[in-house]
Amino acid sequence: MPTKARITALRCAPVRFQGQVRDLAVRWVLEEAGIAYDVRLVGPEEQNSPAYRALHPFGKVPAYEDGDVALFESGAIVMHIAEKTPPLLPEEPAARARAKAWVFAALNSVDPDIIALGDIDHFAADEAWAKQRRPALAAMVQARLDAVAAYLAGREYLVDRFGAADIMMIMVLTALRHTTMIADMPTLRAYRDRCEARPAFQRALKGQLDAFAQGVTSS
Amino acid sequence: MPTKARITALRCAPVRFQGQVRDLAVRWVLEEAGIAYDVRLVGPEEQNSPAYRALHPFGKVPAYEDGDVALFESGAIVMHIAEKTPPLLPEEPAARARAKAWVFAALNSVDPDIIALGDIDHFAADEAWAKQRRPALAAMVQARLDAVAAYLAGREYLVDRFGAADIMMIMVLTALRHTTMIADMPTLRAYRDRCEARPAFQRALKGQLDAFAQGVTSS
Repeated sequence: MPTKARITALRCAPVRFQGQVRDLAVRWVLEEAGIAYDVRLVGPEEQNSPAYRALHPFGKVPAYEDGDVALFESGAIVMHIAEKTPPLLPEEPAARARAKAWVFAALNSVDPDIIALGDIDHFAADEAWAKQRRPALAAMVQARLDAVAAYLAGREYLVDRFGAADIMMIMVLTALRHTTMIADMPTLRAYRDRCEARPAFQRALKGQLDAFAQGVTSS
Repeated sequence: MPTKARITALRCAPVRFQGQVRDLAVRWVLEEAGIAYDVRLVGPEEQNSPAYRALHPFGKVPAYEDGDVALFESGAIVMHIAEKTPPLLPEEPAARARAKAWVFAALNSVDPDIIALGDIDHFAADEAWAKQRRPALAAMVQARLDAVAAYLAGREYLVDRFGAADIMMIMVLTALRHTTMIADMPTLRAYRDRCEARPAFQRALKGQLDAFAQGVTSS
């Protein structure tokens, strides 16, 4: 294993997905933590190779390695880095546990319907089944967004101050970029803008976009 | 907050969902840990109340409280209990981090497509869009199952010995009970049977089913 942190990211992606591939969350948490990292770009052939599957059983990105661990799943990697980086998770045990609950909530209560909506809009918009399905699915997404917005009312961040939960939630909401759903909700729009204005986010986003633009790897 | 552990579960559910509501995972981890708990049954009216939303922002079950924390999201609760229960997460840091990655993988790489397939089969089987959509969705589920089975080949559990990752993966796979997808895969079938044979799982399952049968709460 490399001693310097190393992540994998996609070598190629359609323009509409650039800026929302999940290595963005891991880049972001590493930037917030001030941890230097290399990026190894991978394509479908490597993703399906036994060597890569040993690192990431589902063949996705990002995978993460440093001198101590080899991890997969953006949520797990964000949590792992945040646990070593005091500002990104509360110190107080009850608040810390609740912050972790929000990381799971982003990934299991908010993300699935958003991904399904994106699948329709990006891959099946003209299919009859998609046209029939979309209104109910959009309503399900809206209900989850309403719950997040209701919780955020009067709060700047999901838990006291900016941290791992916000990184994961913003990552998930990014997949609605092709819609106006966030823009139409003042609380969520302000929350997203507040989080995305962070220099660490901007560096992470630039890193992902630059890699797609140049198709070169830094390691 | 109560000092004794307390979870919420649904007062009513269609028979086909009994045995697969997510409080099962939390009951299971508590049974494995030997932690006594009360169950408070809730219905739609309470789930939408401001008091319940303060405990669980999405109004779902389970929510969890003890003398120290108030949590939501079955993944977060399972992780929280497992972190205090040595046999359920490896002690060695790298293996421990990877076990946590599998908890996230169950919930974010395996669960979403399974839930979407269940939504079709349980709620929309006769609709035209569902008939058109199902084959592609079933193939996506199968690809994820294939990845899990490939990883499990030669292993009894996801990480060394039975633990939090297996609890979450089995909970997720439970939602395929109405299909033969697991039964048709010898590795996954054996893995599921091995995990579900555990006395703690059997007590957790009986607890959920008894609550539905009796409609009474233990607290």
